[in-house]
Amino acid sequence: MNPTQIIIDTDPGVDDALTILLALASPEIQIEALTTVHGNIGIEKTTRNALAMLEFANASHIPVARGCSLPLVSPLNKSGDIVHGASGIGKAVLPEPKSKPISQHAIDYLIERILAAPQEITLFTIGPMTNLALAIRKEPRIAEALKGLVIMGGAIRSGGNITPLAEFNIHADPHAVHIVFHSGIPITLIPLDVTYKCLLTTADVERLNRIDSPVARFVRDATAVYMDFYKKYEGFDGCPLHDPLTLATIIAPELLTLEEHYVDVDISGGISTGKTFADFMKVSKQPANIKVALDVRGRDFIELFIERMEKLA
Amino acid sequence: MNPTQIIIDTDPGVDDALTILLALASPEIQIEALTTVHGNIGIEKTTRNALAMLEFANASHIPVARGCSLPLVSPLNKSGDIVHGASGIGKAVLPEPKSKPISQHAIDYLIERILAAPQEITLFTIGPMTNLALAIRKEPRIAEALKGLVIMGGAIRSGGNITPLAEFNIHADPHAVHIVFHSGIPITLIPLDVTYKCLLTTADVERLNRIDSPVARFVRDATAVYMDFYKKYEGFDGCPLHDPLTLATIIAPELLTLEEHYVDVDISGGISTGKTFADFMKVSKQPANIKVALDVRGRDFIELFIERMEKLA
Amino acid sequence: MNPTQIIIDTDPGVDDALTILLALASPEIQIEALTTVHGNIGIEKTTRNALAMLEFANASHIPVARGCSLPLVSPLNKSGDIVHGASGIGKAVLPEPKSKPISQHAIDYLIERILAAPQEITLFTIGPMTNLALAIRKEPRIAEALKGLVIMGGAIRSGGNITPLAEFNIHADPHAVHIVFHSGIPITLIPLDVTYKCLLTTADVERLNRIDSPVARFVRDATAVYMDFYKKYEGFDGCPLHDPLTLATIIAPELLTLEEHYVDVDISGGISTGKTFADFMKVSKQPANIKVALDVRGRDFIELFIERMEKLA
Amino acid sequence: MNPTQIIIDTDPGVDDALTILLALASPEIQIEALTTVHGNIGIEKTTRNALAMLEFANASHIPVARGCSLPLVSPLNKSGDIVHGASGIGKAVLPEPKSKPISQHAIDYLIERILAAPQEITLFTIGPMTNLALAIRKEPRIAEALKGLVIMGGAIRSGGNITPLAEFNIHADPHAVHIVFHSGIPITLIPLDVTYKCLLTTADVERLNRIDSPVARFVRDATAVYMDFYKKYEGFDGCPLHDPLTLATIIAPELLTLEEHYVDVDISGGISTGKTFADFMKVSKQPANIKVALDVRGRDFIELFIERMEKLA
Repeated sequence: MNPTQIIIDTDPGVDDALTILLALASPEIQIEALTTVHGNIGIEKTTRNALAMLEFANASHIPVARGCSLPLVSPLNKSGDIVHGASGIGKAVLPEPKSKPISQHAIDYLIERILAAPQEITLFTIGPMTNLALAIRKEPRIAEALKGLVIMGGAIRSGGNITPLAEFNIHADPHAVHIVFHSGIPITLIPLDVTYKCLLTTADVERLNRIDSPVARFVRDATAVYMDFYKKYEGFDGCPLHDPLTLATIIAPELLTLEEHYVDVDISGGISTGKTFADFMKVSKQPANIKVALDVRGRDFIELFIERMEKLA
Repeated sequence: MNPTQIIIDTDPGVDDALTILLALASPEIQIEALTTVHGNIGIEKTTRNALAMLEFANASHIPVARGCSLPLVSPLNKSGDIVHGASGIGKAVLPEPKSKPISQHAIDYLIERILAAPQEITLFTIGPMTNLALAIRKEPRIAEALKGLVIMGGAIRSGGNITPLAEFNIHADPHAVHIVFHSGIPITLIPLDVTYKCLLTTADVERLNRIDSPVARFVRDATAVYMDFYKKYEGFDGCPLHDPLTLATIIAPELLTLEEHYVDVDISGGISTGKTFADFMKVSKQPANIKVALDVRGRDFIELFIERMEKLA
Repeated sequence: MNPTQIIIDTDPGVDDALTILLALASPEIQIEALTTVHGNIGIEKTTRNALAMLEFANASHIPVARGCSLPLVSPLNKSGDIVHGASGIGKAVLPEPKSKPISQHAIDYLIERILAAPQEITLFTIGPMTNLALAIRKEPRIAEALKGLVIMGGAIRSGGNITPLAEFNIHADPHAVHIVFHSGIPITLIPLDVTYKCLLTTADVERLNRIDSPVARFVRDATAVYMDFYKKYEGFDGCPLHDPLTLATIIAPELLTLEEHYVDVDISGGISTGKTFADFMKVSKQPANIKVALDVRGRDFIELFIERMEKLA
Repeated sequence: MNPTQIIIDTDPGVDDALTILLALASPEIQIEALTTVHGNIGIEKTTRNALAMLEFANASHIPVARGCSLPLVSPLNKSGDIVHGASGIGKAVLPEPKSKPISQHAIDYLIERILAAPQEITLFTIGPMTNLALAIRKEPRIAEALKGLVIMGGAIRSGGNITPLAEFNIHADPHAVHIVFHSGIPITLIPLDVTYKCLLTTADVERLNRIDSPVARFVRDATAVYMDFYKKYEGFDGCPLHDPLTLATIIAPELLTLEEHYVDVDISGGISTGKTFADFMKVSKQPANIKVALDVRGRDFIELFIERMEKLA
């Protein structure tokens, strides 16, 4: 079977970086490109990190298209460096990349690439959805040309991690999310409800580092600040593999429990702005529009992640 | 030990009626009064039903104070009769009550009674919170004179039952809830998360009716429309004992799993209006203000309910 | 002709104090009572000032009923003392009043008095509308028993004076305003559009003080801080007689240009919260519900005010 | 003096069509391009009408770039054909245009053209601002490269014409307006406050048609439905020249009274959504950001319009 062709729209970001590594380590997947966006840190750094990660993994043939520097309407969130470190990739240090982004803007790359291969590309958005939202408004036909969209974002039954109700990626650009959710694209949502069940612990990182490899060291260094954050603010050892878990939809779908519901996002500007909700009791009478992951065999996913990282080593 | 003195602020309503019966059947509880409010149906019928229930149960010595006919700001919800029947108590038929409400308005009764016995009265609101909110604004000192407040309302991790996000009682008057939540009263919240785990099934009702008693027949007739609703709209056999479960805080607290969280309600006017949320990840930095029931041994509560109903028979 | 019987719901406040004096100086008016409310300053001081003003004007036979200390839902505004001074009446010093408020709460006084004399009482609300809103929700029948309601509040074409869109009194409790606007009471609205055309200047105050009288001195001292505020923040000499202008509806209606429009208030919680708007182009298809003053012969009103103050002297 | 180079972002639309004619008739102006957008009618028709108007006026050398078909977040307004007729240009009939839009999307045309000539291009948006907003988010540097932006939109002291508070163009895509208002572009706003003072009457149209010319006939036919609308719904003879008045900023600036204020738009989702407001009393402490026309010598503008139309004949 041919590998699934994916584009990752990303704001690396520690767990974005791990997602890129996991995708490269997975024969089921072929990365067509990375498109970058503001989010965990600013667009300059997310673009730099995307290029640097590909070079680190000997994959600099994969094009990187730089995208939007600001959310549609909401103010830019600037708190990400507490979680991801000033560089965006924790304590990991990667050489300044030699490669450059392609000249095309991410919006135009997405439009051109998706329209050129209808029903072939699956898009993964693991940061704010600004690029995709603008692409849809510029060229509405991409909605039906996309094979699928997998989103890391949202908190359904779970509490939010940036406000009591909202998850970071969704909250960073809720209006973009609203555009995407109402676009008709087939969506799978990977919310905090499942990502918090996929904790990479310090023991896991130590185990991985029994092999002395650049990848193992990168995982250790990259997750260091991230783990400090979760220990300090959320009181547990380990860090959730938010973004990498999106790839489970391809490489280990059996681990996820998906349900189809009517899902939408609050863009009211009130206290619930950025809340993603599922109409479990069907009171809105709206048809189901999104597959949402509500459970996961988290430990199994962590094992799979470590195994693949070991292979990369 | 002396029984706990409670006032029930209520909009009977099928499960309100069962709550009154359960309270009367419970030696741990002494009902001081009922105060009535708009909600499941209009104030005329909720007041009539409150009086009729007390007469039915030979408890017409308990005073009933009539309260507010309209929510503070939101429009009056008029959908309740689909759930509770045109009379508000399903297919049960009770004689027109002979007794009358006291002349004092519910707001004034609450203020006077609560101030007269500081730290002695526990209030149960099992309908919209209009009466209590207005009482607080008229006489702020009742907030610290109340021993406690137990609320049937909200949907924390659960989906809503009137909008995708909101539970009926809270949504019926969210501004009142906002006033109450910010009043400083010690609150225990019994949300849909637990009430949907307390399903009275048709088998339960049949079992109860092996005893041929007025109470057993009342439970059967009162729940008939209610059960039809849940079968038709939510697809299961049985009806959740939303309101009666509040009494578990007194008669069987060991069945409930309570957590203290910062809890608030959305009154933005947007799609999440009436959403009650808990700040599980403590991102708001607000101190915990409400004990919220997040789990319950539902079957045990149903057994307790049936047992007490049998005693009343 | 009999004088119009009015109740003034008030938060004195400099211009509230002048309103009380103007009403007492006007044979067309008979004050039945004052009811007090939070607003320009806290309820303790507004109640004290109401009592003190009546004693100062030898009118302590007029009852004062103390009302609500907090807005319905919005947080209490605490900026009023910049405008009205720490005491609420500028630099004027009045002796501690000997009289006390009646024991009845303002809400209950309003309900009882209005129901006792259907179609006879005209209510003037010249502060936040909390008392009236709660009275309506406690006893909806007062809406049709009131002869009329005159409100100082709102900014229709004018900009707001507390936010870019909202006027102080309305913004202080917009939910109360929403209740009142939708109550069916016949309303006349006196917004900033007209009150800013009624400027009492320093020259006016000097002219009034050619008579050496306690009232003239009070006007001078009371308006001192108020005029400083307007000079400093809004850049003009003089102070608008916001609240007194409401009485023009009785004592000089020919000075006002009233139009009937569909008028409502924004309670969305967004940036326009507290905005009062008129549907000039009738796009909402709603029937006109409020008479709103959109022009006034301001200088004529000021002359009338001075003349009446001279009579009181 | 060189003519001012302008791009008109437009949704023709009757008054858009007249704007194109007026610009072509004005030696002070050189139209660089038209960019089209959804608005008065759908993007297919607005683009067709833009091309057809240029051909009609022998100006098909001017490029037309097709833009966005949908607002950013708000649902598409579909009421425009009541005002502008099913074709968008009233009863006027223009041949199907032979020319085509350029292949570049309006967003990209705007970005490329504006960046290529910094401080030279003045943009006129006389429809919803979707194109410009997306261009700013795709390429933020255009904000400082634009010489200026003139907007037909908003209702400051005036009531709204689509909701009680909002003007059609702003309401059609308020989020786009928010992006534009906060972009730092030097903006002049031409709101309903002035456009309703520029009424082209039936007498004016008759006078113009004393000359038997295609342009005179076009004006007559194009405004026919438009005038019917204003007669029926707003009760006056004539139609406001909303969009053409924007050109007064170049061809007759002395007719306009401009004031600089802090101006913003409500995007709360509440009843005031799309309201543009000026902070007249400076309560927000925000610096002035927009020049807003608050008065106009309307009759003089109409005379100028007719005169120029006669020249085109």
